[in-house]
Amino acid sequence: MRLLLPLLFALAVAAQTTSDAPQYAPDGHLLRPANYREWIYLSSGLGMTYGPAATADHGNPKFENVFVSPAAYSAFRETGRWPDKTVLILEIRRAAEKGSINNAGRYQSEILSVEAAVKDEQRFPQKWAYFSFGQTDKGNMFPANSACNSCHGQKAAVENTFVQFYPTLLEIATRKGTLNRAYSEAAQQRP
Amino acid sequence: MRLLLPLLFALAVAAQTTSDAPQYAPDGHLLRPANYREWIYLSSGLGMTYGPAATADHGNPKFENVFVSPAAYSAFRETGRWPDKTVLILEIRRAAEKGSINNAGRYQSEILSVEAAVKDEQRFPQKWAYFSFGQTDKGNMFPANSACNSCHGQKAAVENTFVQFYPTLLEIATRKGTLNRAYSEAAQQRP
Repeated sequence: MRLLLPLLFALAVAAQTTSDAPQYAPDGHLLRPANYREWIYLSSGLGMTYGPAATADHGNPKFENVFVSPAAYSAFRETGRWPDKTVLILEIRRAAEKGSINNAGRYQSEILSVEAAVKDEQRFPQKWAYFSFGQTDKGNMFPANSACNSCHGQKAAVENTFVQFYPTLLEIATRKGTLNRAYSEAAQQRP
Repeated sequence: MRLLLPLLFALAVAAQTTSDAPQYAPDGHLLRPANYREWIYLSSGLGMTYGPAATADHGNPKFENVFVSPAAYSAFRETGRWPDKTVLILEIRRAAEKGSINNAGRYQSEILSVEAAVKDEQRFPQKWAYFSFGQTDKGNMFPANSACNSCHGQKAAVENTFVQFYPTLLEIATRKGTLNRAYSEAAQQRP
């Protein structure tokens, strides 16, 4: 049994992780993964602002949680790279202030929107594509010339993903030497 | 194989989840779970303040991420209650501001401290106990008369856990009718 269990577990994980791959509706919409809250958590931000600081919504910042499919996470841990069929989910939630014992600071409340980044090499000429579900189960793809696509393509730390904001993965990618060259060079130029 | 896989998975999960239970050193310290980042994520807060609002550290708020052992999460989903041997991990991280494409708001950086809440009915007269690891692998237990213990005992939404701050669990507990009576009554009195 002692030798058998790791094998059983590997088989079972392999069986389970087939469902991690992106699923599409016949009309091309991405289907929202039903169980992404049970995927691997990467990190959260509050009120993160990619345009000028003056555009930040200080009065109503939002939390953003990022999850990744377990199979992709396992591969990244081993290699520092994303396998084909990787799915990352961005969950955007309202940031509540006062409630229960909390007198200052923010905690998470209802879902405002869900987005996804998908690596599907056969399906997308740019390999990665980005989708918005809003509050629905079907994701609309951003066009290939969207701001999402260009920023992910130019500024991300590993392939098209913002690993610079996921501390556990940043440590892995740094050790494995898989950081994008443009990211590494920009990081070295910072004071 | 089609019939065998669910069985394999159940066996493998059973084998895996035995390691979810709290583990103690001979001297009574709680051992920090090595893989808690692969547990189930519950929620995050930023700068949450339980004392007077004036005590909030607005200049240096911290992120707090909460994870729960997978076996306990599965049981909670079914029942709205925590099984014996539940472990929740509170991970406290520095909240960075400007970096890469982020111009305002906060994202997570290095770990500052890790804490745990453990339900172990045979071991603790109050059933639940609280531990601080700091940046080590061994957790020191807070004394039974600590502020942690009394606040968790009096203000938490489900048993001794602050489910009011974990939106996915709050929905389950509300549906299952397992909210603490004191919490429900206080919630009703709010405007």
